[in-house]
Amino acid sequence: MLKFFYSPGSCALASQIALEDAGADYELIRLDFKAGEQRGVDYLAVNPKGRVPALVTGRGILTENPAILAFIAQSFPEAELAPLDDAFAFGELQAFNSYLCSTVHVAHAHGRRGSRWATQQSSFEDMQQKVPENMAACFGLIEQSMFKGPWVMGDKYTVADPYLFTIARWLEGDGVDVKEYPKVSDHLNRMTQLESVQRALSRQSQ
Amino acid sequence: MLKFFYSPGSCALASQIALEDAGADYELIRLDFKAGEQRGVDYLAVNPKGRVPALVTGRGILTENPAILAFIAQSFPEAELAPLDDAFAFGELQAFNSYLCSTVHVAHAHGRRGSRWATQQSSFEDMQQKVPENMAACFGLIEQSMFKGPWVMGDKYTVADPYLFTIARWLEGDGVDVKEYPKVSDHLNRMTQLESVQRALSRQSQ
Repeated sequence: MLKFFYSPGSCALASQIALEDAGADYELIRLDFKAGEQRGVDYLAVNPKGRVPALVTGRGILTENPAILAFIAQSFPEAELAPLDDAFAFGELQAFNSYLCSTVHVAHAHGRRGSRWATQQSSFEDMQQKVPENMAACFGLIEQSMFKGPWVMGDKYTVADPYLFTIARWLEGDGVDVKEYPKVSDHLNRMTQLESVQRALSRQSQ
Repeated sequence: MLKFFYSPGSCALASQIALEDAGADYELIRLDFKAGEQRGVDYLAVNPKGRVPALVTGRGILTENPAILAFIAQSFPEAELAPLDDAFAFGELQAFNSYLCSTVHVAHAHGRRGSRWATQQSSFEDMQQKVPENMAACFGLIEQSMFKGPWVMGDKYTVADPYLFTIARWLEGDGVDVKEYPKVSDHLNRMTQLESVQRALSRQSQ
């Protein structure tokens, strides 16, 4: 059976929702980041990066949301979570997820994880102050240029949807009003009502 | 014909090498970042993010190295640039490329692009000082836990190879001695000798 490592509030929710969308059988394992479990010997043996998500399969371990999301889509083709037979459409999906991973998540991380990239308190505060501006710029671009509607990639729900949902939930904490982005805001509301999303969040709270 | 936008010294080299590996016919278009061409109206119509790489196809535009690299591998299957029929192995490849995109490239970018995430000169200098430590940590992890050898993903060359090569070339400028990482250093030397790499670099200098 698949094992899935997450921490509450993290980006791992994206891949966990996709596991629910796929109807996958998986064991959910919580890491307590405040207690430093992600840096413990046991977990570093699973994922030397000390981050989540990590998906343990019969073949080995996968990390990074864009990779895990594509793996789930390819492993459960009957769930139709990605355009698997269309290299260009699959590329557009991967480009969207890669943007979330490398730009939007990174913009958000400067609010609380400034010590990854600097050492001085004044730098952390400087970074924190720029988070709302950067997240607003990212979501402005998503709203105007990337989101096709009604789902991220157009008519069909894909693994980009739980990923956008997961990061859009961070906007309020980042000082950005999601209502400034009507398509993203509507998407957030519709995602919240999906059974797969409710199951994923419910399992995290058990 | 494909059109490929790059700027000299940027991460776009990774996808351009893959185009050469695939034997793709493409027009190479240089952007002068110092002159701000990436922020010009013409280019923003191509890629609203104002970044490179961007690959213009008959279907539309793709951005982000991990997405473009996977697209090239899928579009030119005869070049055997990715394990296309093995979802787990493809996932490992995507995880590697995603790590380069979201963590290693981001660590490097704090050396010269601090204004993306902060506003004060003192913060930029603080970020710059941490770049060697962060790049060393990333390449330590790649050397010890990720690089399978002789190629990144093992016996077969994949699109992860030009991507690692492209970022490893930045180490010297980031104050990190690549010789500290024998596998990566050997890989860098072997990659430099590949015809596809030489063609890509040659076309950039024309």
